Amino acid sequence: MRKMLVLAAAISLTSSLLAADPAQVPYPEGYRQWTHVKSMTINQGHALYDAFGGIHHLYANKRAEQGYKSGKFADGSVIAFDLLEAKAADNTVQEGARKVLGVMHKDSRKYKDTGGWGFEGFKGDSKIDRAVGKSAATACFQCHAAQKNSDYVFSIFRR
Amino acid sequence: MRKMLVLAAAISLTSSLLAADPAQVPYPEGYRQWTHVKSMTINQGHALYDAFGGIHHLYANKRAEQGYKSGKFADGSVIAFDLLEAKAADNTVQEGARKVLGVMHKDSRKYKDTGGWGFEGFKGDSKIDRAVGKSAATACFQCHAAQKNSDYVFSIFRR
Repeated sequence: MRKMLVLAAAISLTSSLLAADPAQVPYPEGYRQWTHVKSMTINQGHALYDAFGGIHHLYANKRAEQGYKSGKFADGSVIAFDLLEAKAADNTVQEGARKVLGVMHKDSRKYKDTGGWGFEGFKGDSKIDRAVGKSAATACFQCHAAQKNSDYVFSIFRR
Repeated sequence: MRKMLVLAAAISLTSSLLAADPAQVPYPEGYRQWTHVKSMTINQGHALYDAFGGIHHLYANKRAEQGYKSGKFADGSVIAFDLLEAKAADNTVQEGARKVLGVMHKDSRKYKDTGGWGFEGFKGDSKIDRAVGKSAATACFQCHAAQKNSDYVFSIFRR
């Protein structure tokens, strides 16, 4: 009986450690069907190469798409930054493996310290392996803060 | 009165000359909201550089998206090939002006001579200035014919 109690306590502790932090940015399910905003390739020699080298595509959910038009992103806006390896061969550059899936998720209350945006990165093709976690303020917002006039978003919708 | 009749006849003739050919591939309205299939950059030195040099993005309407999954594209499937200039600067490659918007439009009866696909290219940002017209068989299908096993489509949906 004591063994079972210990086991139960252990399971309970593990569960609470694994329970999602309510401030965690959710994985952007279905983003590959969202609207494609624009793309860019960052090559070796660029200051951001270590973090963002490769081909990136930006995708916006419906609410974020409106935000790109109006310049102000409503709560619920989500932008996905899909970073793939850039494979150069035979005078082409092609998409390789996914390096990280970056996410900006607007919730002006939850993320009030970082411009109303939650930031996260999902490593490779994982939906749970997080690259940013609690370091969004230094790892992401430090750069995005400069874009205050466009609601902290760098990209512009390509027509 | 005679002048009016002549004018009416002239207007009628002009209208019939301007009337859209029923086999013409329609401009793919709203394609920027369609699902992004994949992208690629073709650089100088590639055999297709003259025709397709730059960054291209492929977009699929809902029916075409199903086609990418099943390997068989139903009538009404439309694939847009959005070709932009590739602007290299400061160790990045960025999207420039639109060169041409290519379209594949599935209608197995209308386009039975070219694998059931109508092909067209809209020059630059124009919705009416056509680059292919009646030369789809030689200008487009000649290459696409090799892709018979994938219903004449080259691209594969990137996950």
